[in-house]
Amino acid sequence: MRDIRLQKLAHLIINYSLNIKKGEYLQIRGSVVTEPLLKELYREALKVGAYPEITTYLEGVGEILLKEGNDEQLNFVSPVSRTFAEKYDATIHLLGGVNTKELAGVDPQRIVARRRAMKEIIDIQQKREAKGEYRWCLTQFPTHSDAQEGNMSLDEYADFVFKAGLIDKEDPTAEWKKISEQQEKVVKYLDQKKEIHIISKDTDLKMRTEGRKWINCDGKVNFPDGEVFTGPVEDSVEGYIRFSFPGIYAGKEIEDIRLTFEKGKVVKAEAAKGEELLLAILDTDQGSRTLGEIAIGTNYGIQQFTRNMLFDEKIGGTVHAAVGSAYPSTNAKNESSIHWDMLCDMRDGGKIYADGELFYENGEFLFDVIEKGI
Amino acid sequence: MRDIRLQKLAHLIINYSLNIKKGEYLQIRGSVVTEPLLKELYREALKVGAYPEITTYLEGVGEILLKEGNDEQLNFVSPVSRTFAEKYDATIHLLGGVNTKELAGVDPQRIVARRRAMKEIIDIQQKREAKGEYRWCLTQFPTHSDAQEGNMSLDEYADFVFKAGLIDKEDPTAEWKKISEQQEKVVKYLDQKKEIHIISKDTDLKMRTEGRKWINCDGKVNFPDGEVFTGPVEDSVEGYIRFSFPGIYAGKEIEDIRLTFEKGKVVKAEAAKGEELLLAILDTDQGSRTLGEIAIGTNYGIQQFTRNMLFDEKIGGTVHAAVGSAYPSTNAKNESSIHWDMLCDMRDGGKIYADGELFYENGEFLFDVIEKGI
Repeated sequence: MRDIRLQKLAHLIINYSLNIKKGEYLQIRGSVVTEPLLKELYREALKVGAYPEITTYLEGVGEILLKEGNDEQLNFVSPVSRTFAEKYDATIHLLGGVNTKELAGVDPQRIVARRRAMKEIIDIQQKREAKGEYRWCLTQFPTHSDAQEGNMSLDEYADFVFKAGLIDKEDPTAEWKKISEQQEKVVKYLDQKKEIHIISKDTDLKMRTEGRKWINCDGKVNFPDGEVFTGPVEDSVEGYIRFSFPGIYAGKEIEDIRLTFEKGKVVKAEAAKGEELLLAILDTDQGSRTLGEIAIGTNYGIQQFTRNMLFDEKIGGTVHAAVGSAYPSTNAKNESSIHWDMLCDMRDGGKIYADGELFYENGEFLFDVIEKGI
Repeated sequence: MRDIRLQKLAHLIINYSLNIKKGEYLQIRGSVVTEPLLKELYREALKVGAYPEITTYLEGVGEILLKEGNDEQLNFVSPVSRTFAEKYDATIHLLGGVNTKELAGVDPQRIVARRRAMKEIIDIQQKREAKGEYRWCLTQFPTHSDAQEGNMSLDEYADFVFKAGLIDKEDPTAEWKKISEQQEKVVKYLDQKKEIHIISKDTDLKMRTEGRKWINCDGKVNFPDGEVFTGPVEDSVEGYIRFSFPGIYAGKEIEDIRLTFEKGKVVKAEAAKGEELLLAILDTDQGSRTLGEIAIGTNYGIQQFTRNMLFDEKIGGTVHAAVGSAYPSTNAKNESSIHWDMLCDMRDGGKIYADGELFYENGEFLFDVIEKGI
């Protein structure tokens, strides 16, 4: 059975997001339950003359490895992963599975150990990406599991997902091009600035962004999309931040996270629930106490928190920060095997200043200020 | 949910059949519906310290490629297939899917073209296998689709599958070792012989087997198992054979196949139904009109024809022949991108002579003759 919305989404991802070309090697990766979208993407990739390969994985296998594998098995990086990382031009990752709590019973240390082992693969891909030899896109296939996580029925959740991506519009690609233009103004404005100051409930965070590039997220790397982000100067982050929404790591929740930064590093970390996991994440490796990313969500079509960072971080009216690895495209330097986002609501009195100038208030950009500044 | 029979089967395959060792790279391959067995095999492989990788495929994707791909896409061999073929020590292939008629609507020429393209991968594996660097095992996960094909309910079919493999016994491994010993007598006897003569209904086929090795199939490469086979001297096959059971190729049936051989090649081929496909198969390439294998089924625990060659060819009381590629372990030479088995019932008056001596009659070995001859 073929849902026209999946066909539209697949067409947009292959053409607009990734611009897959004839002869390119494309990996399309998703859980077995994402089958309908895997197949539509495969079809669209064949249409443009590419060489697509579907990698379907079974949920539960990761859990078996983490619980029953020995250290060598946990650290093993298969040559097949290397082949994909070294030789493929693009990867589409599909979110959507049978159970968001799959790894909830696994020792967090085992999870971070496996992440560390797989960093080798991520490094290969990031190097190639920096050279323009590799690109990727992450999108959502609506499943019962994710609907449940977001407190919705599957039909409601599917509507939510497609609306957030403007797939319900007649010409989604045209809509995303318009959004891209609007965001470009914000990026042009912020690229000129040296310091960002974020103020909200229990939040007063300063950081320098001089020499850093702001990125316009317009549906190429994440879909749905809607954010602008950069990587702050690593040792410049000072102050404290309280995240409004729970952080989720491998299906486990960490509630009411408060971080204090000094000279760019997290020196104090607290959580009302899940503090042990929070500290394990922050202690993953040398780079995991450093802010790799600061971002502002711009998708006002997403108004509900669904406990899925792909959507949550895009919520128009929020800001998010990630500890761990930075994106080289921002000129940021931080390296880590993790990149973990935490979300902050700015709609109730939140303010952001750039070089002392207020350009964002109560969850909205002040476009008169922004346009005057470019 | 975990079925103890799958755990016993997985344990037997990893230990008895393949003898997977610590540090080995193992690929476990099956359709998404074979999930329970994929996971048990994965667990057993972890237990012995190996590095297992599950490859799950979606049915329907092959159909999309064959129907919608262009010639280059049909001929494309992914570097990932090469990595598996070159670097993995062993592969477990699981039969069992959602629909045995998946490819029934595909042009047979497209199917054979794809087979030809993938021959490169098979060649790499066969070369490594000949050097003892690679091994594989094929087994069945019971599914509704295969039960339906065999005219049974799923529960009945599962019982059939496990009984055929002696999984219902307390110590299946001990049972298979006993079978192996009994078959070894037949192999020792036949290894000394120069000519085989098979007589049955509308069948009178002679072939030389001098210098060829008979193989004892005792659950290492196929499971369930139960046959002895060799590859006849390529240009020596003379006579005619009528196959009692329909041949099945990519889900399509070919009924009442009759082949005539001269100097080892099929010179005449007829079928009551599906003759076009039969001729397409025989014309796949240079080697597809030559007999690559002659075999005698020995599993008297399998008495029903279920339209699944893994089981059908093992039926105690039958003989099977395959056109196409030979197994190098038999010293046979034929190369082809196909290896296609056809089955012949010997229980009603069938006879097999070795160097003129009757050693098999009405579907049974004459063990007094065999034991006298070794």
